[in-house]
Amino acid sequence: MEPREDVRQKFQKDAFPRYLGVELLEVAPGYARVAMTLTENMLNFHDIGHGGAIFTLADTALGLASNSREEKSVALTVTINYLAPARAGQRLIATAREHLATRRTGIYDVTIEEEGSGRLIALARGTFFRPQV
Amino acid sequence: MEPREDVRQKFQKDAFPRYLGVELLEVAPGYARVAMTLTENMLNFHDIGHGGAIFTLADTALGLASNSREEKSVALTVTINYLAPARAGQRLIATAREHLATRRTGIYDVTIEEEGSGRLIALARGTFFRPQV
Amino acid sequence: MEPREDVRQKFQKDAFPRYLGVELLEVAPGYARVAMTLTENMLNFHDIGHGGAIFTLADTALGLASNSREEKSVALTVTINYLAPARAGQRLIATAREHLATRRTGIYDVTIEEEGSGRLIALARGTFFRPQV
Amino acid sequence: MEPREDVRQKFQKDAFPRYLGVELLEVAPGYARVAMTLTENMLNFHDIGHGGAIFTLADTALGLASNSREEKSVALTVTINYLAPARAGQRLIATAREHLATRRTGIYDVTIEEEGSGRLIALARGTFFRPQV
Repeated sequence: MEPREDVRQKFQKDAFPRYLGVELLEVAPGYARVAMTLTENMLNFHDIGHGGAIFTLADTALGLASNSREEKSVALTVTINYLAPARAGQRLIATAREHLATRRTGIYDVTIEEEGSGRLIALARGTFFRPQV
Repeated sequence: MEPREDVRQKFQKDAFPRYLGVELLEVAPGYARVAMTLTENMLNFHDIGHGGAIFTLADTALGLASNSREEKSVALTVTINYLAPARAGQRLIATAREHLATRRTGIYDVTIEEEGSGRLIALARGTFFRPQV
Repeated sequence: MEPREDVRQKFQKDAFPRYLGVELLEVAPGYARVAMTLTENMLNFHDIGHGGAIFTLADTALGLASNSREEKSVALTVTINYLAPARAGQRLIATAREHLATRRTGIYDVTIEEEGSGRLIALARGTFFRPQV
Repeated sequence: MEPREDVRQKFQKDAFPRYLGVELLEVAPGYARVAMTLTENMLNFHDIGHGGAIFTLADTALGLASNSREEKSVALTVTINYLAPARAGQRLIATAREHLATRRTGIYDVTIEEEGSGRLIALARGTFFRPQV
């Protein structure tokens, strides 16, 4: 199967982001871009985007980018930095890129921006592991 | 208002965790414990708990513990470590504790365990900032 | 060879911490405790302990704890949180403990405290990988 | 005083990196580049660059970049990812860049590369705080 098609099929089974309305925009080896509109359901008690909703978008892009290679890859650890609050109604774009892919480990970066303005909302970096190699 | 009551009112307005069925179990100054049952909607394409769902539970506990002091507190950065997969149907408990609270910054730890077995699912550590002091 | 003896021999070859005067206090499977006196040479331009000196002590404890098992283990990523400044002349104690050790990965926590007062200086958490299994 | 000159004076007082032979190559607002030759004294018991030595170079660049603005800035937390081992004799270059600088907080990235080959050795990201604003 063509790698992009394979990743698209994985995304079809990615229940949590699909439940939240995440869309897959683009995939390539070591790369993924996804989008999500922040709804009222995704806010916290400060009335800004909940850290968990922002993280979920970031983690979805990381998970697809790190599984665009042949072997199954799982996150060992992810660090997220919040740069600016997101507001209800904003459409957010997460773009994940590969820094390193060894046989068993990988390091991926993701940026989360507001669509249109390009305003940076969050940065995250994930360390992945391929358990089945 | 009594601090615990104040935090309970914040949780009433914590839209994203409430949307996901998170329950507030316990609050105290610098401390919060929350629970969530992992549903089929919260899985990833490996058929285990999505990193974003696990993180959301952790971040909810961190956000309540860090806002149990008087001033509004927001996360600057959070690191999560995934120790074991969570499965659909499991009830997860997140317990957040304060390591440090200065006038403007705070450091909080959270553990996520499976209820009953106490099996450790994830650990996270957050750095918070009080912007309005 | 007895595991503790093996770790002690590794520490004999741990050039950088030895160059900085780090002492090995205690080792056990998944556990290590080391000490270092912060010298004038280890300060930064704010006249407090340099982040790199504090980190080196933490990383030394993590490296010994994670290599107290049979297989060679290397750090993939470490996050350090600085809680309070350290001053020249203070003796610092770093204590590393294992959260998880699978066949190929491990998660370790370390605390750095001032000897005597027990004042917490820093916390760090490391994700390790065993490349040769 | 011209900002670059001010940062250069800070580096003159940066005892730990100077003790290790770190050189300041370039500074600008929100930016710093430093270099260090990895000596035999900076290895670990696997005979590769000690995590603490690599981190110290990264943290030095972060500290200078984050203190290139007017107000004193201190690290709250730093995450480092190790991508490839460094060997004795290699000259390493750390380049730090600003992602965000608010009145009180800042986020900075740093890459560590081998001079010449450009081979990526490590990545780190730091969250800083200005306590005196």
